[in-house]
Amino acid sequence: MTEITRVDGRTPGEMRPVTIERGWSAQAEGSALISFGNTKVLCTASFTPGVPRWLMGKGTGWVTAEYSMLPRSTNERMQRESVRGKIGGRTHEISRLIGRSLRAIIDTKALGENTVVIDCDVLQADGGTRTASITGAYVALADAVEWARANGHIARNAKPLIDTVAAVSVGIVDGTPVSDLNYIEDSGAETDMNVVVTGAGDFVEVQGTAEGTPFNRAELNSLLDLALVSTSELAALQQGALAG
Amino acid sequence: MTEITRVDGRTPGEMRPVTIERGWSAQAEGSALISFGNTKVLCTASFTPGVPRWLMGKGTGWVTAEYSMLPRSTNERMQRESVRGKIGGRTHEISRLIGRSLRAIIDTKALGENTVVIDCDVLQADGGTRTASITGAYVALADAVEWARANGHIARNAKPLIDTVAAVSVGIVDGTPVSDLNYIEDSGAETDMNVVVTGAGDFVEVQGTAEGTPFNRAELNSLLDLALVSTSELAALQQGALAG
Amino acid sequence: MTEITRVDGRTPGEMRPVTIERGWSAQAEGSALISFGNTKVLCTASFTPGVPRWLMGKGTGWVTAEYSMLPRSTNERMQRESVRGKIGGRTHEISRLIGRSLRAIIDTKALGENTVVIDCDVLQADGGTRTASITGAYVALADAVEWARANGHIARNAKPLIDTVAAVSVGIVDGTPVSDLNYIEDSGAETDMNVVVTGAGDFVEVQGTAEGTPFNRAELNSLLDLALVSTSELAALQQGALAG
Amino acid sequence: MTEITRVDGRTPGEMRPVTIERGWSAQAEGSALISFGNTKVLCTASFTPGVPRWLMGKGTGWVTAEYSMLPRSTNERMQRESVRGKIGGRTHEISRLIGRSLRAIIDTKALGENTVVIDCDVLQADGGTRTASITGAYVALADAVEWARANGHIARNAKPLIDTVAAVSVGIVDGTPVSDLNYIEDSGAETDMNVVVTGAGDFVEVQGTAEGTPFNRAELNSLLDLALVSTSELAALQQGALAG
Amino acid sequence: MTEITRVDGRTPGEMRPVTIERGWSAQAEGSALISFGNTKVLCTASFTPGVPRWLMGKGTGWVTAEYSMLPRSTNERMQRESVRGKIGGRTHEISRLIGRSLRAIIDTKALGENTVVIDCDVLQADGGTRTASITGAYVALADAVEWARANGHIARNAKPLIDTVAAVSVGIVDGTPVSDLNYIEDSGAETDMNVVVTGAGDFVEVQGTAEGTPFNRAELNSLLDLALVSTSELAALQQGALAG
Amino acid sequence: MTEITRVDGRTPGEMRPVTIERGWSAQAEGSALISFGNTKVLCTASFTPGVPRWLMGKGTGWVTAEYSMLPRSTNERMQRESVRGKIGGRTHEISRLIGRSLRAIIDTKALGENTVVIDCDVLQADGGTRTASITGAYVALADAVEWARANGHIARNAKPLIDTVAAVSVGIVDGTPVSDLNYIEDSGAETDMNVVVTGAGDFVEVQGTAEGTPFNRAELNSLLDLALVSTSELAALQQGALAG
Repeated sequence: MTEITRVDGRTPGEMRPVTIERGWSAQAEGSALISFGNTKVLCTASFTPGVPRWLMGKGTGWVTAEYSMLPRSTNERMQRESVRGKIGGRTHEISRLIGRSLRAIIDTKALGENTVVIDCDVLQADGGTRTASITGAYVALADAVEWARANGHIARNAKPLIDTVAAVSVGIVDGTPVSDLNYIEDSGAETDMNVVVTGAGDFVEVQGTAEGTPFNRAELNSLLDLALVSTSELAALQQGALAG
Repeated sequence: MTEITRVDGRTPGEMRPVTIERGWSAQAEGSALISFGNTKVLCTASFTPGVPRWLMGKGTGWVTAEYSMLPRSTNERMQRESVRGKIGGRTHEISRLIGRSLRAIIDTKALGENTVVIDCDVLQADGGTRTASITGAYVALADAVEWARANGHIARNAKPLIDTVAAVSVGIVDGTPVSDLNYIEDSGAETDMNVVVTGAGDFVEVQGTAEGTPFNRAELNSLLDLALVSTSELAALQQGALAG
Repeated sequence: MTEITRVDGRTPGEMRPVTIERGWSAQAEGSALISFGNTKVLCTASFTPGVPRWLMGKGTGWVTAEYSMLPRSTNERMQRESVRGKIGGRTHEISRLIGRSLRAIIDTKALGENTVVIDCDVLQADGGTRTASITGAYVALADAVEWARANGHIARNAKPLIDTVAAVSVGIVDGTPVSDLNYIEDSGAETDMNVVVTGAGDFVEVQGTAEGTPFNRAELNSLLDLALVSTSELAALQQGALAG
Repeated sequence: MTEITRVDGRTPGEMRPVTIERGWSAQAEGSALISFGNTKVLCTASFTPGVPRWLMGKGTGWVTAEYSMLPRSTNERMQRESVRGKIGGRTHEISRLIGRSLRAIIDTKALGENTVVIDCDVLQADGGTRTASITGAYVALADAVEWARANGHIARNAKPLIDTVAAVSVGIVDGTPVSDLNYIEDSGAETDMNVVVTGAGDFVEVQGTAEGTPFNRAELNSLLDLALVSTSELAALQQGALAG
Repeated sequence: MTEITRVDGRTPGEMRPVTIERGWSAQAEGSALISFGNTKVLCTASFTPGVPRWLMGKGTGWVTAEYSMLPRSTNERMQRESVRGKIGGRTHEISRLIGRSLRAIIDTKALGENTVVIDCDVLQADGGTRTASITGAYVALADAVEWARANGHIARNAKPLIDTVAAVSVGIVDGTPVSDLNYIEDSGAETDMNVVVTGAGDFVEVQGTAEGTPFNRAELNSLLDLALVSTSELAALQQGALAG
Repeated sequence: MTEITRVDGRTPGEMRPVTIERGWSAQAEGSALISFGNTKVLCTASFTPGVPRWLMGKGTGWVTAEYSMLPRSTNERMQRESVRGKIGGRTHEISRLIGRSLRAIIDTKALGENTVVIDCDVLQADGGTRTASITGAYVALADAVEWARANGHIARNAKPLIDTVAAVSVGIVDGTPVSDLNYIEDSGAETDMNVVVTGAGDFVEVQGTAEGTPFNRAELNSLLDLALVSTSELAALQQGALAG
């Protein structure tokens, strides 16, 4: 295939510049300000001893997540969900996705009866906010686990993190499979797929949606190929941030 | 692979008995009471001329869906969402999935400025309620479109339905990929995937989630193979019901 | 008075065909799908050991009820109360009426510290949904009590049910008192009265409302006469269903 | 039957002292502060030209009512419904009852396309708040209608009020039918009935509930007898207040 | 400055007639119906042994307040906050102000582990509802404390009330600083200031707001001068009411 | 007075380091990320042509504000208001304060029928979030006005901004009046006062609250002295940021 030029000049498999500002928050036990191009998400991890009532006495911990967008993170201002008095379906969906993605790489037994709440607040949105959230949340979570170890909440040799996790959106734009869609690409994509992958290269979530024409098996395979490459790049960036 | 026996004696690729009672409701423009084994969903399609304000004057119609479970459709009674005063994330997620699945096979131009609201109310739940909902909703939708044609709301030769659509859940249970999980299987599955497929065999949605161990590419492929077989069986049953 | 013919050909005191499908639900401890003509209500009784906090330690049980209509149970689709985020006055009123009616024939001491929640979900509505709900709920409740006895939650010789209970709507349509109004009759009735009666023929509730012209004592008496006849017919049908 | 003495020394058919302070509010188009003994309700009638959207252009007016209790109108402080974020079933029920009672004596054609909202706020509660509300609301409504006539919103010769309306609670206490139950009597009553009666002596609402033992026809008749006497006394007091 | 005549003929520093009807409620432990001209507020104090969970075992009591307006206390009817399903910002603000003002003169240690809830319900509004509320609430609170002493909930020699508290609104109207603005004055004021002052003449709250032109230091000082005079007059009236 | 050392080594009148990062957001018409020490607030100004319905056709614009805190902006994670389903009193109070402060320096006629919505989202909180919000919001507002001028929404020579505005918190800590309290100082302050001042040195808001002992006139005057100095420093920083 000849290389097409994407709206911002990238090649099909090329992600936008990704930066991870680890430890952005002075208050949270773990935090990261992550950017996928113009998409910026502040991820914090709040560690607290104890678990919700329904888990008490079972010897396992709990990791959950909440996602939200600032009202003017988008090009047109959105009404706050607190003002509307209810949380929309999209917000619920993404919060649940982030939570599941992180729980997939957590050994809750090793975490002990402790809770980590991940908050992903989108400060600026340009496509890929859920995948940036998952990728940044992992860094915040890893630091919160280290904090808990340093402060004696989990044992020195406990290993609650059994792998790393990162996510990317891939999609078919003008007939070509591309990685890490920005807002303009996302709006016009025929198919949009969010893929959450462990450091070991296994799938945690595959969520593909035909926005226009349904997609066939070959297209699905091309998208998964791209996703595996991009998430391995993200895993390297996460490692770099945590080593820094 | 030697045939294992599933908890209810089925082979891995075998669906539970599926029945579609078309026209169950005396009031709705289209309706179907669908059963996947003990899972029973009442699907109604309400056709109304006109579209929501944000679509007016664009010459296109609108199809949307709402999913809900009766409080005692489950083994333990659940609190009503009307009593809680808010709709949970899972309900939102499934309502949106059903709506997207149906819109994928609707030509909204051909529908004209008309709205179809699909209601999927789970009367009894035993796993697979969202896939049964999509499959039954298609039948209700098809009848509502016929009703609209018969009553002059859409043109005689308009073809709003460009394909059929059906859905099945597949998953890995005890290491084996199986189709149409019941509640017990679903609770213990390592991976759970909901696949929405058109009559032409293309994908509308692929939503795979690792509940326990992440899954690899080979497992993903086995699950998709099963899903394509089961959804083609469902397409035949839909055709039969609509021909009846 | 010469017999007038009602809109569906019934005589003034004649109820619509009533059917009671006992044990419709595979999950609930007691259940009945009841029809008064085209009105169909699914009644389930959920038995759980224990009582709400405010009753603990008093040695008495609790019976409560929730009523709801499916959005397309009516001729025009109604918005779901879960979507509106609040329960309407009519729903509250009917839920409370059903609960009071059942508590009137329950000996809560004999029930012990156990709770029964009755859910009445209207699948199709054509007038009389609250009276059908009460009548069907009694059957579901009776089966839940039997289940509790069989499962050792209440003593073998305890008699929590001290009577049966059934309900009918009566009203004045075109000047004539009639029984079991369907939707068309109900819409045009001058007076509408819901009467809840025990198997012994005593009143639990009498709720008469002048929709148009106020009614006099003679009219009130005619309506009560009709109600007593119809509820004794319903009591016989309940007995038949429970004997089946 | 020998006359028993009630808890506050009244005879069975005797109401508590009733006072109607007409025109209590300086702001409302009509108002009355009504007392049934220690029960005090502030009733205001707000007249506004125009009707809700669903009535526009039909040439008829609208009368509706809202009932509420101050948090410390009762012996133990209740939580405000505004703080709970939702209106309870009892409040809904009573608001609807007041509205229906007033609409029964209003000729909405003669009212023209105008709206009257009645607010009944219970300042102090000692049983019978709903019946005091209806009785006081009539006075407020009558004054609002006069105000509208004086201010040219309805024609000089229009007669929107076709009768008067008043209400009383009656019940069986210790086996004896009594009128106008106070809180202590109400708490211990076997049967409680609210009866709304026009000036002409016809029934608008009859709502009888067995709190304990179901009631028979003879008891029902005794209660209605008492209610007709008491409501005729109330009608005289209303007339007096409006003449004042 | 020559004396200007205010809209109702008062001099700049003159308050409207203030009346305090102590013990208005037969149910509350303390109560007062206070009027500042046409503004009428019913203040009740509900004393209950015990404190909220977060204060338990700390040996200190709790005083809190809730403010609300009847829907037709104003010239145009307002929607109830219970009907809107949420409490507005203004209501929250005033409830919090009243609570803080009373807590400033309460020794919560001397109150012991007891709670007083103050309810200020505006029956009629003509400006100054929050300052009338604070002034009346003090009287209700003082009586509730006496009630608690008389009923053995606090020790004979405990002195939970360390001072008195009263409040007045002052503002600049047509360039002149005036005290106790009525609704018309308040609507047109350039600056509006609510001042809460103890019996000893110290400030509890100073809340000045420029509605139009910002105000300078000299204007601020004139307003405080007026407020100190008016609140000392109110303190005398409170003393009189409590002595009565 | 000898100089005491504050908890972070500042002199009584010394503010924390203040930084204003103008134009932080790529999407909003105006924006600023402002820091008062560790307090960081993202302020965005969203300009839209048109006004709310109640202002249409009056020839004036509208400026409003919404304040919110990220859940982990604080030392202990707070529940989101969107999750609680309602906005708390403190949030309402601060949103209203910010809005009033900005409207005091806006000529809404010169703004024309346009709306500016200011969002102040606290990313990190260490005391003074409302005063930082007002100070940063002014910069965002000024840029949004410039954007509107550059894009032809307001006339070249229109001057909607008639002054600048900034705010600081002052208070009495351990008996000493100090400026710009951080969280620790704020928690222990006897008196806390938020002062909003125009560039011309006039007051827009003065909100003083005795948290412990009531304050006297001399203390009030000392606090105002400090506030005027600090807000003039802030005005210079705003000017610098806007000149940058």
